[in-house]
Amino acid sequence: MSLLERTVKKIYPQNSELRSEAENRLNKLAMPPWSLGDLMDLAIDIAGITGTMTPAVKRKAIITMAGDHGVVVENVSKVPSEVTPQMVYNFVNGGAGINALARQVGAEVHVVDMGVAADLNDLATAGKIINKKVGLGTDNIAVGPAMSKTMARRAVESGIDIANDLSSRIDLFGTGDMGIGNTTPSTAIAAVCTGKSVEELTGRGTGLDDKQLDHKVSVIKKALETNRIDKNDGLDILAKVGGFEIGGIAGLILGAAANRKPVVIDGFISTAGALIAYKLEPFVRDYLIFSHLSVEQGHKIMQDFLGCRRPLLDLNFRLGEGTGAAVAMNLVEGAVAILTEVATFEEAAVAGADK
Amino acid sequence: MSLLERTVKKIYPQNSELRSEAENRLNKLAMPPWSLGDLMDLAIDIAGITGTMTPAVKRKAIITMAGDHGVVVENVSKVPSEVTPQMVYNFVNGGAGINALARQVGAEVHVVDMGVAADLNDLATAGKIINKKVGLGTDNIAVGPAMSKTMARRAVESGIDIANDLSSRIDLFGTGDMGIGNTTPSTAIAAVCTGKSVEELTGRGTGLDDKQLDHKVSVIKKALETNRIDKNDGLDILAKVGGFEIGGIAGLILGAAANRKPVVIDGFISTAGALIAYKLEPFVRDYLIFSHLSVEQGHKIMQDFLGCRRPLLDLNFRLGEGTGAAVAMNLVEGAVAILTEVATFEEAAVAGADK
Repeated sequence: MSLLERTVKKIYPQNSELRSEAENRLNKLAMPPWSLGDLMDLAIDIAGITGTMTPAVKRKAIITMAGDHGVVVENVSKVPSEVTPQMVYNFVNGGAGINALARQVGAEVHVVDMGVAADLNDLATAGKIINKKVGLGTDNIAVGPAMSKTMARRAVESGIDIANDLSSRIDLFGTGDMGIGNTTPSTAIAAVCTGKSVEELTGRGTGLDDKQLDHKVSVIKKALETNRIDKNDGLDILAKVGGFEIGGIAGLILGAAANRKPVVIDGFISTAGALIAYKLEPFVRDYLIFSHLSVEQGHKIMQDFLGCRRPLLDLNFRLGEGTGAAVAMNLVEGAVAILTEVATFEEAAVAGADK
Repeated sequence: MSLLERTVKKIYPQNSELRSEAENRLNKLAMPPWSLGDLMDLAIDIAGITGTMTPAVKRKAIITMAGDHGVVVENVSKVPSEVTPQMVYNFVNGGAGINALARQVGAEVHVVDMGVAADLNDLATAGKIINKKVGLGTDNIAVGPAMSKTMARRAVESGIDIANDLSSRIDLFGTGDMGIGNTTPSTAIAAVCTGKSVEELTGRGTGLDDKQLDHKVSVIKKALETNRIDKNDGLDILAKVGGFEIGGIAGLILGAAANRKPVVIDGFISTAGALIAYKLEPFVRDYLIFSHLSVEQGHKIMQDFLGCRRPLLDLNFRLGEGTGAAVAMNLVEGAVAILTEVATFEEAAVAGADK
C-alpha cells in the first residue's frame, strides 16, 4: 500500500465523545451562555480533533510550499516567475510577510521547494529549505496536463512526509504557498470541484485589470476544456490543472489529519489544496480550520463547498505565504485557553442567571 | 485647571507626517499592493498615534473596570448584582475569560473597583485590585440620575489617573468592563449620542427573552424621559444615565490618548465609554481601535457613529471583561510587525509587477 493510501486510511472523523465533553464544560463556564461565540465552537473542534480536553497547540509551524507554473506564459500574472525563487530567498532571510506574522504568533516557518523553476540547491544543502522538488515548474495547463499522475502522487506524498516528520514536535500546522501564477490552477481546481463557473471563481490575483481578468478567465476555461479531468479523482485534478505546491499543501493537510493535528488553512491557494485533499479523503474536512476570507473572489465559494465553520478573520488579506494562517493561530490558542483555563460557575463560586 | 481639562488639552489628532511615512513604506513592501489589507491600514494608524515608524506595542494591559447599577431593581438583567463582586474575585483568581485570553496575548489585567456595590477592601488592601470606588453602585436611572456631576467627573478622572500611572510602562491599552445591568445605561448613552431609537439599540444582554427585551426598552425610554440630559455634555450624559465603570473607561481612553497610546476598545459597554470620551474630546477618536463587533445589536450603530475603521474581529463575542480587546491585541502586534519587520522590494531584491 502506498504512503497516500496508508495515510488516507488513518483519517477518521472528529472524536464525538470529546466534542460532547468539551461542549458540556464550555456550557458551565462562569459567563453568559456561549458568550465567547466562535472561539467556543472552535474549542469543541480542537477537542474533537485531538481527542483530549487539554489540547496542546503551543508548538506551531507554518509550512510554506513553493512552486512555479508553466501557465504564466499565457500572461495570467503581472509578476514574472523569477519572483518565486526571489521570494524563497526572502523567506529564508526572514524578511517576508509570513516571517513577521509567524514571529508574532511564535510559529516556525518551514519553506519547501515543491517545484520552483530555479536551482535552489544552495538553500537545500544549507538546511534552510526542505527540498521536495518534483520538477522545475509545471507544464502549461492551457495546452495539456500540469504534470503526470506519478508527479501528482509524489507532490502529495511529499506533503504527507513533512507532516509525519514534524508531528512528533508540532501541535498545530498552518498551510502557506508561494508560486507566481498559482491563482490560475487554483481557480481551475475550484471550478472542477465546486461546479461553479470560471467567471464566478476568477479573481485579480496580484492585480489584474478588467481586460487581463477576462483573459485569465479564457485561459482557465481552455485548461478545463483541453484536459479531460476525472472530477472524482483528486490526483487526476491535481495532475491536469494543479501545481506542485498545491499538491504539497494537500498532502500536508492529509498528513496532519492522519496525525490528528488541526491544520489552519491560509487563503485561496491553500483552499485549493484543501479541495484536493478532500477529494482524496472527505473526512479530512473535520481537521480544517479556515483562517480568513481572502479578497480573491472565489474563496468564499470554495469554503462554502467544503462546509466547515466560517473563517475566523476577514482582514482583506490576499498575500498567501501562510500569512492568514499565522494570524489565526492566535485565535486557536485563545480557543484552547477558554476550554482549559476558564473556571466554571461552580469552580469560581459565581451565581448563575435566573431561569 | 482640573485633571480632565488638562488631559483633554493634550489630545491631538494623529501625526499626519508619520502616517504618510508609514504608508510610503508599506507601499514598497515585497508583496502585491496592500495585500495585508486591514492590518496595513492599522499599521498607519499606530504610526500616526505613536508618532514613530517603530512603534512599541509589546507591553500590553487590559483595564477591567467594575461597577454596579441601581437600575437592576427594574429587572433589566437575568443575573443578580451579587455576580459583579463574585466576578471581581474570579478575575483576581485568574479564572475568568479575560484572564485566559489576556494570558494568550501576554497582557496584564488590572481590575478596577469603580463602584461595585460590595466591600472589596480586602482585595484593594492586598493590591489585587485598584480601588477607585466612587460609590456603592449607581442610583436607578429609571427614576433619576445615576450619579451626581461631581461623581461623574471623579469616575472619568479615575480612569485618566490609571492611564497616566501605567503609561510609563505600558504601550498598548485595552478596555474592559464588569457590571451586572450595564447594557442598560450603555444603551441609554448610545441613544443620546447617536440619536437612534432605543428599539434599534437595545439587545438581549445576558439573555433576555422577547418580553424581557420589551421591558428593558421601556425602562431605557423612561430613563431618557425622566432625566433631562444635555446631549452635548459628556459629563452630564454620564451622570444622568451612565455608570461608574463606563466613566472609568471614558477616562482611561482620554488618558491613553493624552499619552499618545493606542487603546483597543472591547465591546458594547466599552464603546459606550468611548462615546462619553468622544463627547468630552472628539480628537480621541484617532486613538481608538475597535477590537470586534459584538452580538449586542446596538454595537454596530455606535461604531458607525464614531466613524473609526471597521472592527478587526467578528467572533460572536458578547462577554465584555475586555475579552475582545485582548484577542485583538495580537492583530495590533501583527500590524506593527508588518511595518517594522517586512522587507521592501529593494531591500529583499525582489522584482516588482510589470506596470
